[in-house]
Parts: sequence; C-alpha cells; structure tokens
Amino acid sequence: MGNQKKYLIMLRKIRNAIISVYEKEGLTQVLKVLKKYKINIISSGGTYKYIKKKGYKVREVSEFTGFEEMLDGRVKTLHPKIHSGILFNRRKNKHIKEMSTKNYESIDLVIVNFYPFLETLNKTNNPKKIIENIDIGGPTLVRAAAKNFEDVTIVSDCKDYINLIDELKKNKGKTTLKFREKMANKAFSLTSGYDATITNWFNKKSNIQFPERKIFFGNKIDELRYGENPHQKSSIYSTDQKNLNLGFNKISGKELSYNNYNDIYAGLELLLSIKKIPTTVIIKHANPCGVASNKSPLQSFKDSKSSDPVSAFGGIVACNFNINISLATEINKTFFEVILARGFDKNALKLLKKKKNMRLIDISNFSVKNRPGVKIFDNSFLLQEKDEVVFDKKKIKFVTKAKPTKLEINEAEFAFRVCKFVKSNAIVIVKNKATIGIGAGQQNRLDSCRIASEKAKQFQPQKLLNSVAASDAFFPFPDGIKTLIKSGVKIIVQPGGSIRDQEVIDAANKAKIKMIFTGVRHFNH
Amino acid sequence: MGNQKKYLIMLRKIRNAIISVYEKEGLTQVLKVLKKYKINIISSGGTYKYIKKKGYKVREVSEFTGFEEMLDGRVKTLHPKIHSGILFNRRKNKHIKEMSTKNYESIDLVIVNFYPFLETLNKTNNPKKIIENIDIGGPTLVRAAAKNFEDVTIVSDCKDYINLIDELKKNKGKTTLKFREKMANKAFSLTSGYDATITNWFNKKSNIQFPERKIFFGNKIDELRYGENPHQKSSIYSTDQKNLNLGFNKISGKELSYNNYNDIYAGLELLLSIKKIPTTVIIKHANPCGVASNKSPLQSFKDSKSSDPVSAFGGIVACNFNINISLATEINKTFFEVILARGFDKNALKLLKKKKNMRLIDISNFSVKNRPGVKIFDNSFLLQEKDEVVFDKKKIKFVTKAKPTKLEINEAEFAFRVCKFVKSNAIVIVKNKATIGIGAGQQNRLDSCRIASEKAKQFQPQKLLNSVAASDAFFPFPDGIKTLIKSGVKIIVQPGGSIRDQEVIDAANKAKIKMIFTGVRHFNH
Repeated sequence: MGNQKKYLIMLRKIRNAIISVYEKEGLTQVLKVLKKYKINIISSGGTYKYIKKKGYKVREVSEFTGFEEMLDGRVKTLHPKIHSGILFNRRKNKHIKEMSTKNYESIDLVIVNFYPFLETLNKTNNPKKIIENIDIGGPTLVRAAAKNFEDVTIVSDCKDYINLIDELKKNKGKTTLKFREKMANKAFSLTSGYDATITNWFNKKSNIQFPERKIFFGNKIDELRYGENPHQKSSIYSTDQKNLNLGFNKISGKELSYNNYNDIYAGLELLLSIKKIPTTVIIKHANPCGVASNKSPLQSFKDSKSSDPVSAFGGIVACNFNINISLATEINKTFFEVILARGFDKNALKLLKKKKNMRLIDISNFSVKNRPGVKIFDNSFLLQEKDEVVFDKKKIKFVTKAKPTKLEINEAEFAFRVCKFVKSNAIVIVKNKATIGIGAGQQNRLDSCRIASEKAKQFQPQKLLNSVAASDAFFPFPDGIKTLIKSGVKIIVQPGGSIRDQEVIDAANKAKIKMIFTGVRHFNH
Repeated sequence: MGNQKKYLIMLRKIRNAIISVYEKEGLTQVLKVLKKYKINIISSGGTYKYIKKKGYKVREVSEFTGFEEMLDGRVKTLHPKIHSGILFNRRKNKHIKEMSTKNYESIDLVIVNFYPFLETLNKTNNPKKIIENIDIGGPTLVRAAAKNFEDVTIVSDCKDYINLIDELKKNKGKTTLKFREKMANKAFSLTSGYDATITNWFNKKSNIQFPERKIFFGNKIDELRYGENPHQKSSIYSTDQKNLNLGFNKISGKELSYNNYNDIYAGLELLLSIKKIPTTVIIKHANPCGVASNKSPLQSFKDSKSSDPVSAFGGIVACNFNINISLATEINKTFFEVILARGFDKNALKLLKKKKNMRLIDISNFSVKNRPGVKIFDNSFLLQEKDEVVFDKKKIKFVTKAKPTKLEINEAEFAFRVCKFVKSNAIVIVKNKATIGIGAGQQNRLDSCRIASEKAKQFQPQKLLNSVAASDAFFPFPDGIKTLIKSGVKIIVQPGGSIRDQEVIDAANKAKIKMIFTGVRHFNH
C-alpha cells in the first residue's frame, strides 16, 4: 500500500460522540450503529431527551463537563472539556498528557446541525427573535471538529447520517481520513453559508445594498452534461436556500443544458415583466427573436414566431398562459428546444410529449425576485441594482411636432420594454404589440437599425408601415432614425440625451414622424 | 426623541474588554482611550505581552477564567466565563442573577482579529501547517459578541480601531447601538469569508470544481457613479482578497464606469490570450469591433481601427505593448473612452493626458487567472470551467479537397480565437491577422455571416479577396458559407458537427475554397 493511500485511510476509532441536532429524522439509525460499536453519547436539551426516549444510553453535556448550562442555554458546550476533547492532537504526547492530567476524555465524533437561520427569517420579522436564533455553540463545535478532521469526524448535514452509517459499518466503528476530510470541507461551507445568511440579513435590515464584503452562495442542484460548450464542465446552483428547485418544473423531455438555462432566464424575465395580456417570447442565443402580446394566446405565439421564423427554429418559447391543443398543434410545426408555459392542457401535453427532445416546463410557480445583478469576471465582480423600470409615463417627453396618441404610447411602451431585454445596442420595431424586427448586440447603433429594418423587410414588410421603433440608448447621429423612417417607422421611442438631439428631432420633424424621449436608458450586455 | 432614534442610540458603557489581535498597528491609540474611560483589559499570548510592554494594565485570560490555557493555545478563550460575560442578556434578571451567582463579570467590548487564512495559504503549501492555522477561539469570540450586539461591541477589523476611538470619545466611553450593529454585521461577513476561504482551499486541495455548496465573496473597491444605466446604483468588488486592486493601474482620466469595466474585461481576456506578437483589441458594447496582430504595434492599432472605424469611436483600446509617441498621435485622432497598454512612453502619456475624458490604464501587472466562469440569475447561477482552448492543431480536420497551408492555418487560428470572444452567433472575417468583418450576437448564423460580410464590404472591400472566416459553431445549412464565399472568403474554419456537414463541405468544394473542422465550439453569450 502506497503512503498516499495509507494516509487517505488512516482509520480512527470513535469512543465518544457529541450529538446536538435540529434534524432528528434518521437519527435513530445512527444511534443503533453507535451502540453497536460501543460509542458513548454526550448530548443536551432536546436531542438528549430524544435519545433517552429512544432508549439509548446518553450522558448530558452538563454531567460530562461538570458545568451546569446557563443563560437559557446560550452557554452550554462552550466549555474547555468539550473543546479539548475535540481539539487535542492525538499524535502529540504533550496534548495527550494534558488531557490525562485533567482527566479529559476524547470526543471523536461530532454530529451537529443547527436550526437554519433562513428558516428563522421565514418564520418571523422580529429582529430580537431572529438574533436570539443565531447559534454560537453549534458552529463552534462544527468548526472545532472540522479543523481537527485528521482525528475527528464531523457530520453537519442530516443528509450525511446515511453516509456516516455506511462508513462506520464498512470500517467497524471507525472512519477513514478521506471521509473525515470530505465532511470537514462541507462543515466549513455550512458555517460560511450560515454567517453569509446572517450578514445578508443585517444588510437587508439596514438597507445596505453594497456592503464592504459581499457574499453569495448557492447549493448545487444539478451537474449539467456540459457548459456553454461541450469541452467545459458545468453545474447549476440555487441561491434560493429554502428548496432545491428553481421554481420551474420540468414535466417532459431531455435534461436542460447550460444554454437552455441561459435562454430560459432571458425569456422569463422579459415574459414575467408583462402582466395580464397573453404574451409569447421566443429566445435564441439569449436574445429575443420574437415577442408578441395578444388577447388570443394562439395569435401571440404566431406573431412572435413570424417576427423571425428562421431564428425561432430550435429556440425556447415562453408563454405566460396555459397551452391548449390548438396552440400545441401550432407549436409542433416547428422544432423548439424548450416550451415554458403556465401549465399544459392534458391533450396538448400528450401531443407535445411526442417530441422527446423538446423540454416542457411548467412555470406556474416561478416568480422573479428582482435581486441585484452580478457580473463576475476573472478577479472581480460588478454588483448593481436591477433595471426595474421601463419608463415613467409621467416623465416622458413628446419632442416632435406630431404627438403620439395614448394607444401609440402603449405601443411605444411595449417596444421599449422588449428593447430593455435585447443585448445592446438594441433596436426593436413593433407593430400591434408584436415585434417585427429586432436588431441586437451591435457595436454601433446604425447597424442595429439596419438589422431591425432588414429583418422586418425580410419577413413582414407589409407591417413596417406606421410601425413603432425603440432604441435602448440615444441616437448619436440622425443616420439611424433615417434608416428606420425610410423603412416605414412612424414613431420612435428613445432615451434622448445626445448632444445632437436637436439634429435627430429635426430629422424626425422633417419626416413628420413622432418621437418620444423617455429619459431612461436600458443598456444590457 | 422618537422611539426609533432612542433605540438607535441606546448607549452602552463598557467595563471589560477582551483583546486578541493579529493586527497590532494602531492598537496603542485604542489602549489609550480604553484607559481614559477606565475600561479593564483581558488578553492573552502575544497581545497580552504587547499591551503589557506598552505599559497598560491587563489581566491574562487564564487569570480571568481561572483556567490555564492548554493544547498549545488551542483551548484558551473557549470557556464559560468568557462566553457568559459576552453573551448574557443585560436586560434579563435571570441572566444577571446567574452571572452574579457565579461571580462572572460582563465583557462589553471584544477586539479580535485573526491571522488571515489566505495569508497562511500564501506562506506555505503544507496542509498540516495550513490546518493548524484555522482559528477556532477567535471566530467564536467574534460571533458571540456580534450576536449580542445589542449590548456588546465587536471590532473585528483593524481599520475600525479609529472608528472605535471616535465612538468612545464621542460618547464618553460608551458606544451607540447603531455602531454596534454595524460592527456586528461586519463581523459576520468576516467569519463567513474566513470559512469560505477554508472550504475553497479544501475544494482546491481535493480538486472539487463543483462542490455541493459554492461560495464567492469580494471586497468592495469602489462605488461607481452608476451601473449599466444611470438609474442603477453599482459597486465593483475584488475577489482577489490579497490586495484591493484589480491588477490594472489607472494613471489618468475620469473614474471608470460600469460599462468601462465590462468592456475592459472583454478586451483583456482576448488580448492576453495572444502571446508575443503586438496586438490591439478595440471593444464596444462588450464585443470586439477590431482586433489586429502585427509586428508593428502602430500597424496593429491602425488595422484594428480600420476593421470598423464607426464602431471604434468611443470604444476601449487594449494593447499588449507599450504606447509610444507616434501611436499616441494616431490614437488621438479618434475619441476613445479607455486606453489600456503595457505602459506609456513619457511624451506619449503627456499627449494622451490632454484628453481629460480618456482613461489611461497601465496593464503591465494584469494577468488572467482563468477562474471558473459564473453567470448569476435571479435565483440561481451557472458555474462552468473557463473556455481555455482555441483549437488543437493536431486534431483539426481538413475536410475540403483544397487543403490550407501552414500560414493559412495560423490565420485560421487567429480568426477562430477572436471568434471565441465575440458574442454568439459569431462570424469573424480576417485578413493578415486583422479582422475585417465581425458579425456578432445574432439569433441565427446566416445573419452573422451577412453582417460580417457587409462590414468588410463597407470599410475594406479590397481585403475580402482570399480572406479567412471563422464561425463559433457549425453551419446548420450551406446558406451561411455561400454568403461568405460570395464576398470573397477563401478559407472557412468552424467546429463541424452538423447533420448537414456534407452539404456544407460540398458547397465549399464546389466553390474551390478550403475548410477546416476544429471539433471545438466556442459559444459565448
């Protein structure tokens, strides 16, 4: 056996275990195994009572330490006898001698989990109660045991009860170093996450958006087949610590890919920002290629597809309504990677399920929480408030001689909203609350104008007349709006703010079109 | 005075302070103030000696607890007398009674900072030494004091020594609740970050790329004027915990904006992936609009700008070389937001500095660490390995009758590399290691082909003949390559892998052009 392998095994017999757990399910199985291997148990409070009730022998912490717990249990395990028992180095004569002089016993197994801080937050808004629930003794036991993993086993997650049982059985009451190290790593991730939740709560309480130290964490939900490309490994994590799902429920089809997730979020954030009216969003490469609102759900799908039927192929479709059989029949004419909807009728589901490669997802329970945006680079990250507005109808300016009607303002609002979710530079041309041309991701605005116009000319030229165009940022020159006007656009909505605004307004007036300045920019990269 | 205000003030007199610090600079100023307000000091080890030496009265922890420290200091403050002193509720008669029965004293101020775990990692590779340095007692003191911030003051950062002094002076030896709460929040962010560093070290040690719980954190470097748009607040954080800078050094110009940072990283990752040969990258809206390598640095700048002079305006320019006066003169003909270079000659700097709005940044010390990529959504994040390859020259396939020369393969490699950094769908046309057409961010590949061709036709049509085109993913139909061929492209490099590959190869053979399959895709959204 090689030295490395020998080291990895380094079996440790367990004499005493300290147990203090919030999660008791599955604990009896652990107790059974501990008894089998003659491992003594030390415990207190609710866990002590539970173990006793189950008929197992157990010493109280206060009996073990000779120190009565005080301050309503705030000080209980914070005692040298407990922490020496965990922390002493089993290979150091000096430590062993100190332990024996004091007649201290070794504690080789720590099973501790604490009431999740997030649960407290979900249960009460009372700061005093929340603070009272911050555990001090528990994390200290966990950290001490994890530090000394070379000799001590720490089980900090109830999901590992079963792994502990396996480990003890396999090694006849002992654990391997490999197991102990894995558990120690997990323990530090737990305590880090616990304190992150606390500091994030303090930040929220004090309305601190940009604290000196910003911490994020997530729990792994799934390992993905691969990342953005097949040679990159990838996993997806949930930052909602409560339950390990993302709020959308896959009901059929292959597993979701990295790029599916990326497109899904691009689609859902846009879709769910539109309330009430049935809307379909089709996403391809994280950009919308068709968005349409219509009283008729079927029509909203048809219109969104007509915006760019070439790009729509293989895209993801997101609907803020339930899919019925007639829509399912229409959807089935094209291949899409993912269909997201607020439920599927039974016969619609039956039809759509036939395409095994198409993922069907129920988004009835999904909601956007508008958390701050984070963009992570190699050695830094940008944190920013979410871009939550579209424009304020009270603050928009009608800068041309011709003024838009109320209906036209609503149409402009739709165009500007879609534009907000298109990668910059973005130009979006709209007719009857349906996109007809989307110019995305260009390095200059004129090119985005050209692309949007060309797209409309290619697929629905008849709709260009009297259409509405939105721009995510101001026009630095009149060339862009001239391109739009030439193609038939009659209303332009844009933030304004260029030093050449007057030139742009003059060009609009000359063409007798209407222009709205929103005062709000929507760069999105 | 309103109740809220009264609560925020809630002054607390400090009787005993426990001090255990790694960072001693500035501590004497604190000691002076503690003495002034007759605050007793408890300490141990190095801090005890330091305080004693400075001539201040101080009790040893062991004297205070009546318990000799053991296990080489592993167990010292983990004692009920210390933690009761911190944790008891000063407004609860039961707690006060328990404290007085035991003759325990209250500890109202905790000044503790620990040897940063990251420093340990930078000093040694020995796991035993690293683990020995994991502090258990320190974080417990910090967490206990932070939990009980309603009565106790925790100072866990040496940068707050001065704030503590101010607070005590202002309130005559007392602290306000507002101050205590702020310090408590910071304390939990410290302990969370400390344990995050530990678990990240374990993950690295065990080669775990996708742990069950993934934690990131960063320290704020700067509040930005605003985020991606003026109505969004924003800050930038460093994830390099060692020093609070990003590795690039601004030497002139206005403060950097959110969008500047976004463009800078887009530019630097591409630029620094090209070794040896002088190269210029111009970025606009996070996409390259011109990239050129040339033995002559000046020519590399000129060529990169010629690729799309319209978009280049107001972009960011990144050079992997030193900027001299002739290049500075050339740069000054256009307005750029940011110039990044490996240094600036003195007279070049003098010239460029005249444009006050243009930021000049020295990137001599910047390096890309290829950390995993993270994309954060509203309630989840995707974690993936960095896309580190371009293509493997040994694995590429020459799929057409006509085969490329070695020189042409190098040209194809350049085109494919740039393509990797262009938002998908991406098409990049190159001549003599300079881009002449970049088709970025389209929802279908044909559109990207059109845009790239149009761009080249618009600015440098003469260079299209015998040019090389790269595609970040396969061509689903021959239409895209037909567009490229028609415009003059003679070599196409793409991953391959479409079910219609043969049709695409046939079209290439028919046009007598050369095609390379790389087997590697480079989606980038």
